[in-house]
Amino acid sequence: MALKKIGAQTRKMENPPSILSYYSIVGPKEGEGPLKDYFDLILEDDLWGQESWEKAESKIQEECVRYAIDKGGLSSENIDYLIAGDLINQITPSSYSARQLSIPYYGIFGACSTMTQSLSLGAMLIDGGFADYIACAVSSHFSTAERQFRFPLEYGNQRKMSAQWTVTGAGTTILSSTGNGPYVKYITTGKIIDPGITDSANMGSAMAPSAIDTLVNHFQDTGLDPSYYDLILSGDLGYVGKDILMDLMKKKGYDLSKNYTDCGVEIFDKFEQDTHAGGSGCACSAVVYNGYVFKEMAKGKYNRVLLMSTGALHSTMSTQQGESIPGIAHAVSIENTKE
Amino acid sequence: MALKKIGAQTRKMENPPSILSYYSIVGPKEGEGPLKDYFDLILEDDLWGQESWEKAESKIQEECVRYAIDKGGLSSENIDYLIAGDLINQITPSSYSARQLSIPYYGIFGACSTMTQSLSLGAMLIDGGFADYIACAVSSHFSTAERQFRFPLEYGNQRKMSAQWTVTGAGTTILSSTGNGPYVKYITTGKIIDPGITDSANMGSAMAPSAIDTLVNHFQDTGLDPSYYDLILSGDLGYVGKDILMDLMKKKGYDLSKNYTDCGVEIFDKFEQDTHAGGSGCACSAVVYNGYVFKEMAKGKYNRVLLMSTGALHSTMSTQQGESIPGIAHAVSIENTKE
Repeated sequence: MALKKIGAQTRKMENPPSILSYYSIVGPKEGEGPLKDYFDLILEDDLWGQESWEKAESKIQEECVRYAIDKGGLSSENIDYLIAGDLINQITPSSYSARQLSIPYYGIFGACSTMTQSLSLGAMLIDGGFADYIACAVSSHFSTAERQFRFPLEYGNQRKMSAQWTVTGAGTTILSSTGNGPYVKYITTGKIIDPGITDSANMGSAMAPSAIDTLVNHFQDTGLDPSYYDLILSGDLGYVGKDILMDLMKKKGYDLSKNYTDCGVEIFDKFEQDTHAGGSGCACSAVVYNGYVFKEMAKGKYNRVLLMSTGALHSTMSTQQGESIPGIAHAVSIENTKE
Repeated sequence: MALKKIGAQTRKMENPPSILSYYSIVGPKEGEGPLKDYFDLILEDDLWGQESWEKAESKIQEECVRYAIDKGGLSSENIDYLIAGDLINQITPSSYSARQLSIPYYGIFGACSTMTQSLSLGAMLIDGGFADYIACAVSSHFSTAERQFRFPLEYGNQRKMSAQWTVTGAGTTILSSTGNGPYVKYITTGKIIDPGITDSANMGSAMAPSAIDTLVNHFQDTGLDPSYYDLILSGDLGYVGKDILMDLMKKKGYDLSKNYTDCGVEIFDKFEQDTHAGGSGCACSAVVYNGYVFKEMAKGKYNRVLLMSTGALHSTMSTQQGESIPGIAHAVSIENTKE
């Protein structure tokens, strides 16, 4: 067996799992943003015929998984595991989606880092010989997150300029033990870093240090330089967190000025869409990966990308009890060729 | 590579991971129950010097992981991954514990099925060559769960006879790529089954069908008969769910009358402790496995056990929105010998 542990936090896949198919669904606001032409399905309204936003989020996640499976030429019986998560208490959107899909199910919680947490676990289970096909799925919804974490929507709360806008949508990646790529090559799993931020309207600052830690570990463990990648993409640091990350990485000797950006910065138009510090939510990175990135990799625009979703692992209760916001970030590298 | 997929839901470990060490912490009530002599640490009060029950739960989980690592002769730097979960919104007890431990972290949510979900993922990551040591950890706390899922404790709510009592405590298992056992041999991952129960004070009934489904899949996939095991232990079906499971398994041709029980039935005294339908919570099965089962396996009382934690994947909001309670169960077999 080849060496898979290549550092404290990084693993190298022995037989890199292939991305068989992927799908993205977004809400109306995301469907008016700069990446609108990349999403597979843009909803006309964010209830999608359901009685509540929570039920709508569950339907969005479920349909996204179904479309991804279908696009891969499979049926749900072919999928060994569904590894899914979201932001809602007890991740009920994922569980109710999994109930309808009837696939062996592992629920996970990594807040907005969930997409790369799911891809990491999925890649290891496939490379380890435990699965042929795994569905990695996440969702988030502006209206479910806003009323759970912040204020009733009817209240019309004025948002801070450092606050981010939760993306409504879902992304699914189907990983396969065989296929023609792109391939998952390295995964770097994050440790929690907590810089002591207590303002839940400033999550970019809370998450940036963990993102920096994961990036530095990735480059040290692999011996790679940022220039190895055509694109380095963080999940949802937004404008505030992106600037912190670039500044501090530069001080550590890593130049990210040419090939790095953040999904939260890219998904909305800064001047037209009034989302302040950018997008956030599990779906923010998920729809950018499964909408934009994998499609541009298929066209050959990018051949090597490093995806790193970022999460803020607080709750309303932990904030009320005076706790600061712990951050985490998991990185996954995707390459068009196996070697 | 040996065949690891031996059925739709069951995997056989090629190099069975070994249980290096384990630790259990319980609250005062659990420390007065029938299994009191097995727990490693019994707390004198359920706040343990903290300002809130939520902070206490986090401390209980963190200290439990630390003690288990220490008992295994390791330090936290040796642990490749911490895979942890609990019942609280955004699993903050696990995240705040992980923050203090500084181990690469995967948060998971399987409600009361979390212990075997963690053991399943941990065993596959080790057998797949991605880790040498993994800490599988869960916690639950009567006072945090009661006020989150049911009523303020001060209200003195009268409990239904079908209701279960959330166990205060934490359990940690350290899995290792090498060692002298006991070993994780098979894992059977559950699908969600939802029998349509909407009464969150009757979770045994909500979870029993998924437990039956996982058990039947385990026996079909492995070709084993229930009599193969010295002990088959479900997580927290309690008195109501245990009876349903035994009845329906008998109708399907599986006799569980000799070697099956439920952790929720065993952890409290039915007549003295006033817990109605028995114990529940992530820690219910976790402290019975890491307290009672592994200690009795070390003494040779049991050589082959099948552990199956069971989870009810609802939230207060899903119940308020009229949704039924989805159940799930994951089974893990543990044997004293490798073959």
